[in-house]
Amino acid sequence: MKVVVDAFGGDNAPLEIVEGVVLAIEKNKDLSVILTGKKQEIENILNGRTERIEIVDADEVITNNDKPTEAIRHKTNSSLVKAYDILKEREDVVGLVSAGSTGAVLAGAIMKIGRIKGISRPALAPILPTKLDSDVIIIDSGANIDCKPINLLHFALMGSAYYSIIYNKANPKVALLSNGIEEEKGNELVKESHSLLKNAPINFIGNREGGDFMSGEVDVMVADGFAGNALLKGTEGAVGAVLSLLKKSIKSHTLSKIGALFMKKTFKELKERIDILKKHAGSPLLGCKKLVVKNHGSCRRYNICASIEQTMLLHKNNLVEKIEKSLEALEKVNNND
Amino acid sequence: MKVVVDAFGGDNAPLEIVEGVVLAIEKNKDLSVILTGKKQEIENILNGRTERIEIVDADEVITNNDKPTEAIRHKTNSSLVKAYDILKEREDVVGLVSAGSTGAVLAGAIMKIGRIKGISRPALAPILPTKLDSDVIIIDSGANIDCKPINLLHFALMGSAYYSIIYNKANPKVALLSNGIEEEKGNELVKESHSLLKNAPINFIGNREGGDFMSGEVDVMVADGFAGNALLKGTEGAVGAVLSLLKKSIKSHTLSKIGALFMKKTFKELKERIDILKKHAGSPLLGCKKLVVKNHGSCRRYNICASIEQTMLLHKNNLVEKIEKSLEALEKVNNND
Repeated sequence: MKVVVDAFGGDNAPLEIVEGVVLAIEKNKDLSVILTGKKQEIENILNGRTERIEIVDADEVITNNDKPTEAIRHKTNSSLVKAYDILKEREDVVGLVSAGSTGAVLAGAIMKIGRIKGISRPALAPILPTKLDSDVIIIDSGANIDCKPINLLHFALMGSAYYSIIYNKANPKVALLSNGIEEEKGNELVKESHSLLKNAPINFIGNREGGDFMSGEVDVMVADGFAGNALLKGTEGAVGAVLSLLKKSIKSHTLSKIGALFMKKTFKELKERIDILKKHAGSPLLGCKKLVVKNHGSCRRYNICASIEQTMLLHKNNLVEKIEKSLEALEKVNNND
Repeated sequence: MKVVVDAFGGDNAPLEIVEGVVLAIEKNKDLSVILTGKKQEIENILNGRTERIEIVDADEVITNNDKPTEAIRHKTNSSLVKAYDILKEREDVVGLVSAGSTGAVLAGAIMKIGRIKGISRPALAPILPTKLDSDVIIIDSGANIDCKPINLLHFALMGSAYYSIIYNKANPKVALLSNGIEEEKGNELVKESHSLLKNAPINFIGNREGGDFMSGEVDVMVADGFAGNALLKGTEGAVGAVLSLLKKSIKSHTLSKIGALFMKKTFKELKERIDILKKHAGSPLLGCKKLVVKNHGSCRRYNICASIEQTMLLHKNNLVEKIEKSLEALEKVNNND
């Protein structure tokens, strides 16, 4: 299975990206990778570890300062555009991984690869831990700021298909973010979306509040990209704030410092559980005709490796086809109305 | 100073409400309270502690199942409506405290007391801790679900006036909740609001993300009630989730259990810092002609006591006049444009 990786996207490119590819290659014997970017630099990092790795030279880089659509149109020799060209043209390439500018990755996906028929807005769906053993995804987390009810319906379908693959769970619980669990609660967008989700071929459990996000009760939280972004970032910020207060307090009491030594295992466990974003794959851009996984700009080799493996998993489990099928099922429901 | 308290609003009424009043009376020699509700029950709880406490009999109760405006209109003998009548009619009563249904408290404030001239939407602004020593408020936290830019401008003015009083801090830092700090980021509402806030007589520091909410960088976070509610509840949920994961892990390792014994001081400190919502006053309904403080339905005596004291503080520091003045200042800015 072949995946193309943008070696020059992200704050820690190219080193962490290339090392992430090497990790993935070592772990997966059926994987081969095409790296796009400045060939000499990539070769220097690889230092001979070239088995199943192909390099396609690209000497330009798209930055966060570039205007996304213009960059995709004009920076034709950039590592990202080259990667998209390869994903588009080569049938054996099943997906693309990039940690580059979100706007440019989005623009490239739409302009070069195209959307699944019927989907007008591809969406991002990052993973967060819950207080139980399960994880939760939020869709959309910020790719689509002003949304219509039909977009939220599609987010629900795509999120459900995605979650069911990555956690191997049939009928994940889909909820709609609102300011109360009652059906009549919500802003205009939520109220209109609620009735669409109720009739969709998903396991819709109704409206849930921001406070239910990490409760374990929800698998797929559906929101417009603005509220979704507020919830995602607010959650991450709150988790960080609690840990920061905890650390500060431990430092200021000698007994607490001693206690902390005994609690090493707990702190490690806690860190592993809540640092899920740090170790995890990026988010696929759900709704594209081919797999595109967007990593956080600050990601490290482990994230890149995880994203490549996620791409493989999603391909093996036919994510794109699953989304297409759920759109068909939706159409059937609507026709029968 | 006289405050009227709805003795029959909230999950723990009337016991916790009445005991909260007794606490406040004991702590504040210049306070007197009118309690509204079933007289006999209140007297039984007071058990003789009637100094500076007057009871106005009201045998109906408004519940969360009542439709707010209908309840205010027709349940004229309810503890909440009686309290509003007293607040409206008696000049010596400076404020009202209730832990009853948010919708009914809101409806009562608008129908019985009225809004400050120029303010179309009163707003709620609860307090949260930050990871530093400061606290942050979010306005609006859910009273106004679909908002216009002018509403967000008013939230900013009112939030700034409120924060400056309760923390005795001139020019608190006001931020607009968005999906990025750049001026051009945000949904349509945020983009239009941004330019209004930029020209307002407040210390506007620009757009901030959900992740900046608890950073200590922001004093007053401005948002529409939908996104604000998602951020507030998401934050509370995340804080709870981290503590829950921490507890679970401690319980499952013997060494951690021992460590936790040494860390008692730290856990107490952490709890005190993040349980701020539990000990704190409710939120005033900013934008009303007289002071109305809404408590959480699950509040306890300490919250009621804190809310009464907050009402006194806000009255002494002329919150309503301060908001009126900042509306005048705003008008001046706009006229000079």
